[in-house]
Amino acid sequence: MKKSVVLAADLGGTNLRMAAVDSDGSLLCRTSTATPRSVDHMELLSAIELLARECREARSGELQVEAFGIAAAAVIDFDHGRIRSSPNMPELNGLDLSTALAAKIGLPVTVENDATAAAIGEHWLGASRGVASSILVTLGTGVGGGIILNDVPLRGIDGTAGEIGHICVEPLGVVCGCGSVGCVEQYSSARAVTRMACEVRNQFPDTLIEDKEDLTPLDVFNAGMRGDELAIEIFRRMGSYLGIALADLINVLNPEVIVIGGGAAAGWGLFIDHLRMEVQKRAFQQPAERAKIIRAQLGDDAGILGAARLAFIKLA
Amino acid sequence: MKKSVVLAADLGGTNLRMAAVDSDGSLLCRTSTATPRSVDHMELLSAIELLARECREARSGELQVEAFGIAAAAVIDFDHGRIRSSPNMPELNGLDLSTALAAKIGLPVTVENDATAAAIGEHWLGASRGVASSILVTLGTGVGGGIILNDVPLRGIDGTAGEIGHICVEPLGVVCGCGSVGCVEQYSSARAVTRMACEVRNQFPDTLIEDKEDLTPLDVFNAGMRGDELAIEIFRRMGSYLGIALADLINVLNPEVIVIGGGAAAGWGLFIDHLRMEVQKRAFQQPAERAKIIRAQLGDDAGILGAARLAFIKLA
Repeated sequence: MKKSVVLAADLGGTNLRMAAVDSDGSLLCRTSTATPRSVDHMELLSAIELLARECREARSGELQVEAFGIAAAAVIDFDHGRIRSSPNMPELNGLDLSTALAAKIGLPVTVENDATAAAIGEHWLGASRGVASSILVTLGTGVGGGIILNDVPLRGIDGTAGEIGHICVEPLGVVCGCGSVGCVEQYSSARAVTRMACEVRNQFPDTLIEDKEDLTPLDVFNAGMRGDELAIEIFRRMGSYLGIALADLINVLNPEVIVIGGGAAAGWGLFIDHLRMEVQKRAFQQPAERAKIIRAQLGDDAGILGAARLAFIKLA
Repeated sequence: MKKSVVLAADLGGTNLRMAAVDSDGSLLCRTSTATPRSVDHMELLSAIELLARECREARSGELQVEAFGIAAAAVIDFDHGRIRSSPNMPELNGLDLSTALAAKIGLPVTVENDATAAAIGEHWLGASRGVASSILVTLGTGVGGGIILNDVPLRGIDGTAGEIGHICVEPLGVVCGCGSVGCVEQYSSARAVTRMACEVRNQFPDTLIEDKEDLTPLDVFNAGMRGDELAIEIFRRMGSYLGIALADLINVLNPEVIVIGGGAAAGWGLFIDHLRMEVQKRAFQQPAERAKIIRAQLGDDAGILGAARLAFIKLA
């Protein structure tokens, strides 16, 4: 008898990744491709169909694929499986992705926002496993967020809830891509860490941080671990500002766990004390003591696992 | 046949108010007293018992009292009807209020936080009637908040959720009673409006705002409506800072309606444009356009009505 699995995909502006996932959350086969970009969505749908076929054929003797879940970097109408809008993939705006994919691959389809899917993944099998109310914060190109309250993902009436990265932490601060100023994303994302390092490196002539294009938060962290003052200062800023935003969330939502993932989480050892100090200073004592602030456990697989979880739930 | 009603109370640090409420939300009789203060809670329980008896006896021929709901200025353990802590009534800390009251008045008792109860009241019969996801912001001595998401009040694991007044809007700003700095409560509460007016009135020698102890936001508003520059500037600041906090909430929660009540809402005509401008500048377009920002409709009765609603729900 074949094992029941779902297919799950993570669709970003750069890569499309897919895997077959069993009910325990094991990824049984993985495949990926560069996200095709064109004026309409046909190429993208074909690419998803192709990967799905690969996954199904690779182990067709053993696996029975029952459903398909996809996490996309977009604002989602979850109930109808539609893409409302996607800043990085505008060709998807308004697309009824679940119907289009169901027609191509013959499976029931669930569509979720990628940050929310990642929060669902961590809630299922990762750092917030077994916890009713949690917030996932991802420190990547931007600062993303997924919120789960009483075991229910918070999507909002338009599917835009969870934009933690655009909490204001400096009312007259750095201009943000969203149109506002002083968003926490401008101080605590992976991109912000490297940007801040480049901005002030001239004031630190002896810095160990290399002057290179593809500087990563891990490079900055490694310099900091060797005592580099600039790196230490960058992560102090980064952690303090993130602490302001998390204190806001703790006061407003009183969550049990806040999970931090993404590239800039690599600097954990250099920012977490500053972050916690800021939270302690700013949030009410009881919810601040309650909210465990911990690292994500599922890495890049969180979104796929969240999409898989939703696909299983739809089947049940 | 007698009409089924509940008794509902609003317990603040200054006043204890009570009414009988029918299933349509009509307040059939009202009574109130100064909140008794002593080292233990016995006097307070007796005062509640006395008002409850008054209410029941006043129209005992017509009304059948079925349950009792109470909104208290405290952190509540809703599921167990316990007071976790009350900064203004520390004699209640840890009290199993529902059991203690049920023993005295012989009715099933529901206990809720006053700000959450007010949000439930507005959701039942006021400005957010029929709306699944709403936020109530009260601009009184402090800035209070009650959040309802998908028709469910958000209480948080410790009952501390909804502390909207302590969202940071100025990271190095005015020191707040909560221990943090730059909380929106320090810029947008009723107390902040009058404090700011007093702080800078020396710089406005011609101001129409009187130099008096019991200055109210309505006094400041009235001066502003006569063109007073200081008053106009105070409400500009007040509205802009509140706009920063509401933009955060709109980005994170994507609510349908934000309801503003409390004493400082009296300045509506002078602050709402600044508030909306700040929200438009800072929040994402879609959720910002979605979130209607409107005035509360139930005034001081919101808490009692919310407590009554919960008492009816418990009966059902």
